[in-house]
Amino acid sequence: MTIIKTYQTRIENEIEKLFSTNANPRGLYDPAKYVMSLGGKRIRPILCLAGCAIFNENKIEDAVIPAVGLEVFHNFTLLHDDLMDKSDMRRNKPTVHKIWNNNTAVLSGDAMLVMAYKLISKTPKKYLLPVLELFSKTAMEVCEGQQFDMDFENRNNVTIEEYIEMIRLKTAVLLGCSLKTGAIIGNAIKKDAKALYDFGCNIGIAFQLQDDWLDTFGNSEEFGKPIGGDIVCNKKTFLLITALNDLNKTSKKELLFWLNNKEFDRNEKINAVKNLYQEAQISKKTREKINFFYNFSFKLFGNVNGTKNILDELTQFVHNLMERTR
Amino acid sequence: MTIIKTYQTRIENEIEKLFSTNANPRGLYDPAKYVMSLGGKRIRPILCLAGCAIFNENKIEDAVIPAVGLEVFHNFTLLHDDLMDKSDMRRNKPTVHKIWNNNTAVLSGDAMLVMAYKLISKTPKKYLLPVLELFSKTAMEVCEGQQFDMDFENRNNVTIEEYIEMIRLKTAVLLGCSLKTGAIIGNAIKKDAKALYDFGCNIGIAFQLQDDWLDTFGNSEEFGKPIGGDIVCNKKTFLLITALNDLNKTSKKELLFWLNNKEFDRNEKINAVKNLYQEAQISKKTREKINFFYNFSFKLFGNVNGTKNILDELTQFVHNLMERTR
Repeated sequence: MTIIKTYQTRIENEIEKLFSTNANPRGLYDPAKYVMSLGGKRIRPILCLAGCAIFNENKIEDAVIPAVGLEVFHNFTLLHDDLMDKSDMRRNKPTVHKIWNNNTAVLSGDAMLVMAYKLISKTPKKYLLPVLELFSKTAMEVCEGQQFDMDFENRNNVTIEEYIEMIRLKTAVLLGCSLKTGAIIGNAIKKDAKALYDFGCNIGIAFQLQDDWLDTFGNSEEFGKPIGGDIVCNKKTFLLITALNDLNKTSKKELLFWLNNKEFDRNEKINAVKNLYQEAQISKKTREKINFFYNFSFKLFGNVNGTKNILDELTQFVHNLMERTR
Repeated sequence: MTIIKTYQTRIENEIEKLFSTNANPRGLYDPAKYVMSLGGKRIRPILCLAGCAIFNENKIEDAVIPAVGLEVFHNFTLLHDDLMDKSDMRRNKPTVHKIWNNNTAVLSGDAMLVMAYKLISKTPKKYLLPVLELFSKTAMEVCEGQQFDMDFENRNNVTIEEYIEMIRLKTAVLLGCSLKTGAIIGNAIKKDAKALYDFGCNIGIAFQLQDDWLDTFGNSEEFGKPIGGDIVCNKKTFLLITALNDLNKTSKKELLFWLNNKEFDRNEKINAVKNLYQEAQISKKTREKINFFYNFSFKLFGNVNGTKNILDELTQFVHNLMERTR
């Protein structure tokens, strides 16, 4: 994992450099700086650099600024999503609309989206158009995913297919985009760039399903936030949808009781729903779904022609991300 | 004005075509379609096509899609600004956050910004990089301008220079950018493209000062909204700042009384402040300032080398925009 580690350091340095100044107006730029300083694993820019290195290690420097652009975009989505979801905390710190206010969250987010485009535009001219088109397509899909996610809150008939499509749009395509952006800058042939994209999308779905699983069955310390949040707010995840599909009539009625119950004890609800999940073997079924996407993504990955040690390191990196807190 | 009229028709047709479908998710795309259907004078795309035609009339078709991108961007800023300003109406219709909700206004706005970039990216490859860089620089400046505008609400020592700089960023640079985008696609030489940009910025400042003047001294029917809104909400316009600078001690005290008075009769406040404005000759001073920027912009415009009849039509178009409702 030494190469991936150097990518991460390179990215962190670049982010620090880009956000080191106290630009005016402070009310616009300070929140962006704050969000970018909260850390995170920098998965997307790392994938971008790795995606480039697989095909041409000498071109990594060309990919650094666009890679940071992908991270700025990701943080823009977190900023606006937290505002829309009224989330108070992110990475154990108060969110922008809590520290500043809603208007600041709207406008600083807008500025971060423009900033992301500015950085993406630093792609070498030869690859600018395909990288830009991929990025815009992805950015629009991420917006669509967030809209579907919000729409699902008011619907009781969301199917598994719709849910998978929603998380594909909301979170997975950006991982595919990150890898493919690197691949394009590394001058990969079309087939390989596409294979990396598909790998990223499928592994992204596995990551999100893993996140859903952890939210219910994980360890709160390792997960970094309290367990059961999705259960408490009736979030229509793979777990809940599968339970609604698979439970017998009596148990489904009990589950619906908890979904419709407006006043409840948090722990009582979590335990009751978890018991119903156990009855329907939701943990096992979710893990099977995760493994399906995980294994499928590596089948796609196996077809990529590139530098072996980078491919191996990327495999290990993704494997570690899946293994965390399981 | 026949040529400008054909540009406007061309733009309207393109907008109608682009927003004709009922794309999914509807919650994301319907608000964008709604905002774009509210009309407006389409000044920015018209300036873009005219900016192109001045140098090469045969390239107008290359500029149509980027021109629509500029209009989509402009409407994105209106959407998010209305949300931040809690404005209920725009062009005599309810705003997006009133018809839908705040989250929809945030997310649909984001999607419109991405859409704007998608359209800008359709610039012919040869000119993509300079057009894209100009657009991103401008978009960031527009965000800065909006932030300064919000900052000014909580400050009592805003200077004339700061105010002019704020309106330059918030509204004028996009006019300069529109003209220059067209000029670039029309293959103008650098000097001419810059002259058009500067012309647009200066005429943009004149337009905004005109808007400020109309808000106090205009005719509500022709202006399209009630007169005196800026006075009622203490907006720190050129008018108010100049009055605070120029009034004698006693009159300034009276003006400050109205600024600090939380409970007042709307018409009483408007009349009182207008009387103080008359005392300080604010109408005349504002008109002088407008004329300064107007005349200066046409001095810059005179240096542009291009097709004479287009230059003449553009002059007439801008002149009519300034004359409206004076």
